[in-house]
Amino acid sequence: MTTTEAGATAPSGETGAAEAGGAEIVTDHDRGIHGYHKQKDEHLKRLRRIEGQVRGLQRMVDEDVYCIDILTQVSASTKALQSFALQLLEEHLRHCVADAAVKGGAEVDAKVEEATKAIARLLRT
Amino acid sequence: MTTTEAGATAPSGETGAAEAGGAEIVTDHDRGIHGYHKQKDEHLKRLRRIEGQVRGLQRMVDEDVYCIDILTQVSASTKALQSFALQLLEEHLRHCVADAAVKGGAEVDAKVEEATKAIARLLRT
Amino acid sequence: MTTTEAGATAPSGETGAAEAGGAEIVTDHDRGIHGYHKQKDEHLKRLRRIEGQVRGLQRMVDEDVYCIDILTQVSASTKALQSFALQLLEEHLRHCVADAAVKGGAEVDAKVEEATKAIARLLRT
Amino acid sequence: MTTTEAGATAPSGETGAAEAGGAEIVTDHDRGIHGYHKQKDEHLKRLRRIEGQVRGLQRMVDEDVYCIDILTQVSASTKALQSFALQLLEEHLRHCVADAAVKGGAEVDAKVEEATKAIARLLRT
Repeated sequence: MTTTEAGATAPSGETGAAEAGGAEIVTDHDRGIHGYHKQKDEHLKRLRRIEGQVRGLQRMVDEDVYCIDILTQVSASTKALQSFALQLLEEHLRHCVADAAVKGGAEVDAKVEEATKAIARLLRT
Repeated sequence: MTTTEAGATAPSGETGAAEAGGAEIVTDHDRGIHGYHKQKDEHLKRLRRIEGQVRGLQRMVDEDVYCIDILTQVSASTKALQSFALQLLEEHLRHCVADAAVKGGAEVDAKVEEATKAIARLLRT
Repeated sequence: MTTTEAGATAPSGETGAAEAGGAEIVTDHDRGIHGYHKQKDEHLKRLRRIEGQVRGLQRMVDEDVYCIDILTQVSASTKALQSFALQLLEEHLRHCVADAAVKGGAEVDAKVEEATKAIARLLRT
Repeated sequence: MTTTEAGATAPSGETGAAEAGGAEIVTDHDRGIHGYHKQKDEHLKRLRRIEGQVRGLQRMVDEDVYCIDILTQVSASTKALQSFALQLLEEHLRHCVADAAVKGGAEVDAKVEEATKAIARLLRT
């Protein structure tokens, strides 16, 4: 089950417990909690730093800084974005994809295909 | 291995069943069969085509073909390699990583970390 | 010409003229005008849009948007940064590198090496 | 002789004839000699090594090597191809693009645009 569909059917009153309880497996995902949930603060801090880098680029262009120095800063920002993407992806694989595998069924194939397409977009092939 | 595709090569007596049955989960991985096993022929065909492209590059350099045309062919070869990598990765996630998730334990974390590092190398961050 | 050598000695009142005049070649670069000068507004507009995308990413993380959707937006931002880099690079080649070639001497080799290194950083090899 | 070393200061009667003769500038490019001419042997050696890497990949697939190890080798081959492309590009900028700049006219714009598009293909944006 994807997050978007999550929640509605999950029995109430089980927050934080009973992941593999009884006959039915209920995961964090079922409760609408994403893989990156716990790293949220870290992610936001990273993204604010990248936002600062992009503002720095504007200043560089505005102050007529030498082209090559601007390109170096662009590379740094791109790298920071990809590094953020990799962390997000790792958490996604660890939680969403692994959850789907545990639950079994066709879901895991869909999740893996979706993740692979996201990786392809990052690779830009 | 996912449960769904199991079977054909599996020793008799366990076709399509038993993966999650009983006390022990036995997967293709346990039997030394990798995720890309069934696509082997397709993979080899792809790689032979890429080998042909690289030989084509040698011919181009040897015949003093215009630099830009060589660069275009390099891009095509790189793209073909990355496309091969993505297919391999998808099968790896579907089989090895999903298998680890089904088995539970610390294995899945190790597998996901390993896969993420491989993706990072492909992204060259 | 690099920024460092630029400007100070350039006679005033010759804007837009005399590039290849007389005995000495005086280029825009000599007058401290970079290749990307005329596209400045366009560059700033692009960068502000990218800054908006990065802020959008923060909102997505904050609102627990599905990981894959965040990754799609990261790819879009990375692509926008690289597209900006390519435009900057094109202007750099057209102006700084071509200027160095016209002037002759060892300068052009240094400029080409510098540009290639910047491209390598963008490619992250 | 490359264009950059050519020209104004060259003693008459030099090998290759008439580089900077009279009114017309004649460059290596006019004589059908590409920038990468002198590095030909080095390029061919590099490409044969990459061909060997791709054959190595076929062997790995054939021998059912672990997916992640294959992916590592794919990354190495991609990197080698990009490194080859960068060297070719550097020579192209140093010779073909610089030549066009020396000759002046609209040619340099076309050459720079062409080179930028090749870089874009390498970046895959």
